[in-house]
Amino acid sequence: MPDKNYFSSSFKLGILGGGQLGKMLLTDTRRYDIQTKVMDPSPVAPCRFGSNEFVQGDITDKQAVLDFAKDCDVITIEIENVSTEALHELEAQGKIIYPRPRTLDIIKNKSLQKDFYREHKVPTASYFTFENREQMMQLLLESELNPPFVWKAATGGYDGKGVSIVRNSSDIEDLPDMPGLIEEMVDYAVEIAVVVARSPSGETKSFPVVEMEFHPTANLAEYVFSPSNIDIRIQNKANQLAEEVAHKFDHVGLLAVEMFVTKDGHVMVNEVAPRVHNSGHLTIEGNVTSQFDQHLRAILDLPLGDTEIVRPAVMINLTGEADHSGPVLYEGIEKIMKSSGVSIHLYGKAETRPFRKMGHITITAKTIEEAREVAGNVNNTIKVISQ
Amino acid sequence: MPDKNYFSSSFKLGILGGGQLGKMLLTDTRRYDIQTKVMDPSPVAPCRFGSNEFVQGDITDKQAVLDFAKDCDVITIEIENVSTEALHELEAQGKIIYPRPRTLDIIKNKSLQKDFYREHKVPTASYFTFENREQMMQLLLESELNPPFVWKAATGGYDGKGVSIVRNSSDIEDLPDMPGLIEEMVDYAVEIAVVVARSPSGETKSFPVVEMEFHPTANLAEYVFSPSNIDIRIQNKANQLAEEVAHKFDHVGLLAVEMFVTKDGHVMVNEVAPRVHNSGHLTIEGNVTSQFDQHLRAILDLPLGDTEIVRPAVMINLTGEADHSGPVLYEGIEKIMKSSGVSIHLYGKAETRPFRKMGHITITAKTIEEAREVAGNVNNTIKVISQ
Repeated sequence: MPDKNYFSSSFKLGILGGGQLGKMLLTDTRRYDIQTKVMDPSPVAPCRFGSNEFVQGDITDKQAVLDFAKDCDVITIEIENVSTEALHELEAQGKIIYPRPRTLDIIKNKSLQKDFYREHKVPTASYFTFENREQMMQLLLESELNPPFVWKAATGGYDGKGVSIVRNSSDIEDLPDMPGLIEEMVDYAVEIAVVVARSPSGETKSFPVVEMEFHPTANLAEYVFSPSNIDIRIQNKANQLAEEVAHKFDHVGLLAVEMFVTKDGHVMVNEVAPRVHNSGHLTIEGNVTSQFDQHLRAILDLPLGDTEIVRPAVMINLTGEADHSGPVLYEGIEKIMKSSGVSIHLYGKAETRPFRKMGHITITAKTIEEAREVAGNVNNTIKVISQ
Repeated sequence: MPDKNYFSSSFKLGILGGGQLGKMLLTDTRRYDIQTKVMDPSPVAPCRFGSNEFVQGDITDKQAVLDFAKDCDVITIEIENVSTEALHELEAQGKIIYPRPRTLDIIKNKSLQKDFYREHKVPTASYFTFENREQMMQLLLESELNPPFVWKAATGGYDGKGVSIVRNSSDIEDLPDMPGLIEEMVDYAVEIAVVVARSPSGETKSFPVVEMEFHPTANLAEYVFSPSNIDIRIQNKANQLAEEVAHKFDHVGLLAVEMFVTKDGHVMVNEVAPRVHNSGHLTIEGNVTSQFDQHLRAILDLPLGDTEIVRPAVMINLTGEADHSGPVLYEGIEKIMKSSGVSIHLYGKAETRPFRKMGHITITAKTIEEAREVAGNVNNTIKVISQ
């Protein structure tokens, strides 16, 4: 088979969405000199630089996506909320789209995603879905489920938005009238994630398990640890489950599989994202191949890279302080740069807002304990405030 | 002292030269979200993407550089051949320029550079300088120096151009009539390099010694190895010497110090480059901090990063095959991607030419022996040809 000529050639990769995930993907398209064209609704999207062509446009608009895709050879996404209608039409025309539109349809709707797990015997928390509030209330009565439980919007959730922990009956009152699902609260010991890559020819490789610690209020991973310190047999089980899920979706590209490990050692799938993912950011510094490199390799049917850990790593999300809005200032940044192995990633957003994801920091060290210690200091030192 | 607000701010870094060194520097300015403005004479320069602003212009033209620099807060270079006259004028106006124009004046002229070593008692090969061919011939006679020796043009040399090994009297006949120097041929055991960073406040850190193997005809490092396997005492001596040289130049930014280690263990300075350098490319994957990150930290007076080795690494320059010119094709690229730890950097040049530097590949592994073995296979497999 001749080499596919993606490199310094006329080949063009289209990316829908131009946020931070796209921005980090562009680091690798630039390294490989693969031409890119990116569309995002914001004229100041992070991908306005680093792409060969940036188009300001509505990625949820069918016609806009059809027009955008015309001169692209392969299309991928960095956010699920795109016009899959357009993607189906493009695929029918013979355009290569990864992740596949039919996979995207299922994953972007959390109710369909849960149904998929049930149908394919993937272990997951028990749940019921509903189309509106009335149906939700009726099913709640029938199920005799009492708080605490988890409510999720079927669509539109992102970075903890569209997810509520329902703790009492007044929380139930506050739930919006929209399609969604209610899920039992899993009494888990730890939350983990595995990023899997799968290529069109079926090659599958997963990154080692990472462990997450969530922010008490922002519903966003505050720390991600690599390697996880859970039992290696449970890690193997999680890697196997994640690869199975990717296979069952007939997925191509990256699939981030978030899982719960229960106190008695069971692994259950929480949810997946069909793209590069926050839980994989630390692979840039921590692993032989980064998740961004791996996503490109997967969607272009190139050999997948080695996912082995090079250095233990901890990732911290850098979010806007609760009481600050306006032009951003990274207070304490110079102080944290004094520590060894502190890698700062700022996403290129000029304005901060409460809990807005502004960047992340990866800390690598010789041991995970040392990385954790530095990460704690970094987290206490840096503040994302307004000027 | 308040944090310097370089990050997601109106601060603007000007970079003269928009080639591959600039391109890799932009990976880090993007990561830190530091605004950049780049000037290069070529409209298809690698830095036309990834910079916030790209200006096509003549970096050797005084007025063009003065105009370019007006709205920049700090100016740096990625190539020595720029209008230092403009830089002196800008510095006199209070603009911050690193490396300093006076350092650049000395380094970019190889004769002045050698005189500097003599004056500052830096060990270097013995030499004489001349203004023209006539003077050269006379000094050759007087010195009673016989071939083999090394001829170097005073200015304009780059990537092995402007350097000749003179092996016999017919080689002498072929030497051009221009200012330059003639240097004794050092009977060295190995060529090494140390990249040093120095900040305005005087903080100095050097990367571990790398070892070079040169291409027999292209006069370009074919392999760079990290770590070097020379005696650790000689490595320490080399690091110390490189840091001393940076100090003597009162240098700010990165200084790549190329050195010879003689068979009896003496370390001599060959030449220096006041910028990020080919011998430091493997720090991207191989060290805690990359040379590009370090250069930014140095010129912005931020804390210098840890230079420690994370993984043994070998770098290969990817140059155009001797008998190929035209639109580039990287033959064998898919095959080499199957090996673990192969990191491909393509510079974004559409056309290959004989020996043109088109990219580089870094191979990391658990041991330097393993990295060397993979590097050998990679070097035998990939070919930069025209389509």
